[in-house]
Amino acid sequence: MMSSEAGKVGPDHVVMSVDEVRELALKVLLQAGLSREQAGPVAEVITAGERDECHSHGLYRLPGCVETVRHPRFVPDAVPVITEQSASVVRADARFGYSLPAFERALPTVVRQAREVGVSVLAINDCFHFAALWPEIEAITAHGLAAIAMTPNHCWVAPTGGTRPILGTNPFAFGWPRGGDRPYVFDFATSEIARGDIALHKLAGKPIPLGWGIDQAGQPTTSAAAALAGAMLPFGGYKGSALATMVELLAGPLIGDLTSMESTAFDGGVNAAPCHGELIIALDPAFLGGGRTAAGHQGAEALFAAITGQGARLPSQRRYEARERSMKDGVRVSRALHERIIALLDGPQ
Amino acid sequence: MMSSEAGKVGPDHVVMSVDEVRELALKVLLQAGLSREQAGPVAEVITAGERDECHSHGLYRLPGCVETVRHPRFVPDAVPVITEQSASVVRADARFGYSLPAFERALPTVVRQAREVGVSVLAINDCFHFAALWPEIEAITAHGLAAIAMTPNHCWVAPTGGTRPILGTNPFAFGWPRGGDRPYVFDFATSEIARGDIALHKLAGKPIPLGWGIDQAGQPTTSAAAALAGAMLPFGGYKGSALATMVELLAGPLIGDLTSMESTAFDGGVNAAPCHGELIIALDPAFLGGGRTAAGHQGAEALFAAITGQGARLPSQRRYEARERSMKDGVRVSRALHERIIALLDGPQ
Repeated sequence: MMSSEAGKVGPDHVVMSVDEVRELALKVLLQAGLSREQAGPVAEVITAGERDECHSHGLYRLPGCVETVRHPRFVPDAVPVITEQSASVVRADARFGYSLPAFERALPTVVRQAREVGVSVLAINDCFHFAALWPEIEAITAHGLAAIAMTPNHCWVAPTGGTRPILGTNPFAFGWPRGGDRPYVFDFATSEIARGDIALHKLAGKPIPLGWGIDQAGQPTTSAAAALAGAMLPFGGYKGSALATMVELLAGPLIGDLTSMESTAFDGGVNAAPCHGELIIALDPAFLGGGRTAAGHQGAEALFAAITGQGARLPSQRRYEARERSMKDGVRVSRALHERIIALLDGPQ
Repeated sequence: MMSSEAGKVGPDHVVMSVDEVRELALKVLLQAGLSREQAGPVAEVITAGERDECHSHGLYRLPGCVETVRHPRFVPDAVPVITEQSASVVRADARFGYSLPAFERALPTVVRQAREVGVSVLAINDCFHFAALWPEIEAITAHGLAAIAMTPNHCWVAPTGGTRPILGTNPFAFGWPRGGDRPYVFDFATSEIARGDIALHKLAGKPIPLGWGIDQAGQPTTSAAAALAGAMLPFGGYKGSALATMVELLAGPLIGDLTSMESTAFDGGVNAAPCHGELIIALDPAFLGGGRTAAGHQGAEALFAAITGQGARLPSQRRYEARERSMKDGVRVSRALHERIIALLDGPQ
């Protein structure tokens, strides 16, 4: 999969241009019955994931997106409804389609509000959600704004000190605009590791490190299968567990939407993408800087220079480097995955 | 003043009522030259820290508060200026006094804004800061609001992958209202451990666990002195490091205030409390619930029940238990600390 052979195809991978990835994703999603409004933004973030070598959010997600369309509550031609609830709150009712079209429709209002009053809270409700948060964060930082985003998930993670899965992997993401196309961005699961990584270890028959999960008896385990059947663990002990709980509360109950436990119940065993809410807070440094915005940006840049100047990496550095490579040389997709996706096109829809 | 009444003292500690703690703290702070407006809220959070057995934020902080008054830029009778910058942004200019009087003056406006438009961002600027964040979080949740708070510090923490201290211990706090006086609240340093804990190990001549800090050569160390001279480490690896960076950016450059590196430079070797900004975001579940607020609160309570029901603890449980004990039986203050504080009263001011 990561072989270094040149050429358009290798024995175990296919090389595709970024445009070809987008085209393939769009074709698959439209054939699965999604409207163009739903399929477009989904294809876009899958392409961005593949391009940035975040493979777990790239084409790898496409079969799951097609599966999700079959959930009885999923609305494949949902048209999101955007409401300005106040001068600083935007609601995006996803109408049980994907989260991404709702975000896309809401973005211009969020940007305008943040510029006008300094802050805009975006509450996305009733959305099926599978995407990484960094594409949305980047879409906001492109307008010169800082942003926080978070969303729950299905309940796969035990709280620190507990034994049963009640929290989601609950990603938390943040971005800071740097004037160019390389904002400071991070986006991490509040679990020790992504669920997909444990699943890959199970597939490969490899043990997992201690600390990733516990078995159904609540005991530490190195068995990927046991951890998937038991519970994943938060990162960073009780602090990560507290953060994961905050994500539940802010992107769930605060905006009148579901916790990860409720999302799993809603799924009803279909194993679709989780359906719940998402919270985004956009903040405008130009407004909030209170006359000292330029000094603020200088302080931020001095901080970044101090991080990279001592050999530490900024969180998105790897993604930006991958992006540059992919735009020039295309992306390598494993042949097995590629065949699985092509089969989606051929399969009975 | 505290007397050494029979039954109230032990060989190595003094027992004081919560009211006596407040009275002593206030007396010391007023004698150090603070105005009543500055001294009152500072005495209040020191009392709250002692009451909740967060000793590192209790009376232990009082000598440092007196030291800080001597910083050439500190204004002991500062009168904070509160401005409504927009329908959802409040600025509190602390005028180089403590952060707490600025927060206290701004709170009613923050609460009103959050209720009117769903969110209120409070930017506290130019404040000397030594306090835990949970007293402010509790003051906000008491009004039925959720809140996030964060603040930088002096630069004591190396980024993950780095060797030099450029980040603060950067606390991050969150609260969710539960209708009574026991909100869900957490408040943690984004460093692996509090700086005070390393200092206490140094005092006791005890080694520190690996992972708390690195020496000046950037090597892992079990020497408390070496870690204090070198750098502390973030909690949770690169994720904690990213969070600490977010705190720098949001509570610093975003609101036109200092990063931890800049705060250390501002201190100029005086070793006073750090002077910088603080960011608070208050969010109203009644407004943001979009007609489903009651269901949201039920979902939140079901989550808390699932956490405690499996034997895990809520983050503030220990504090609330200590609070109950202290209100009934008073607090135990080490004799050494008590004598040090009494000496502040007797010493030349």
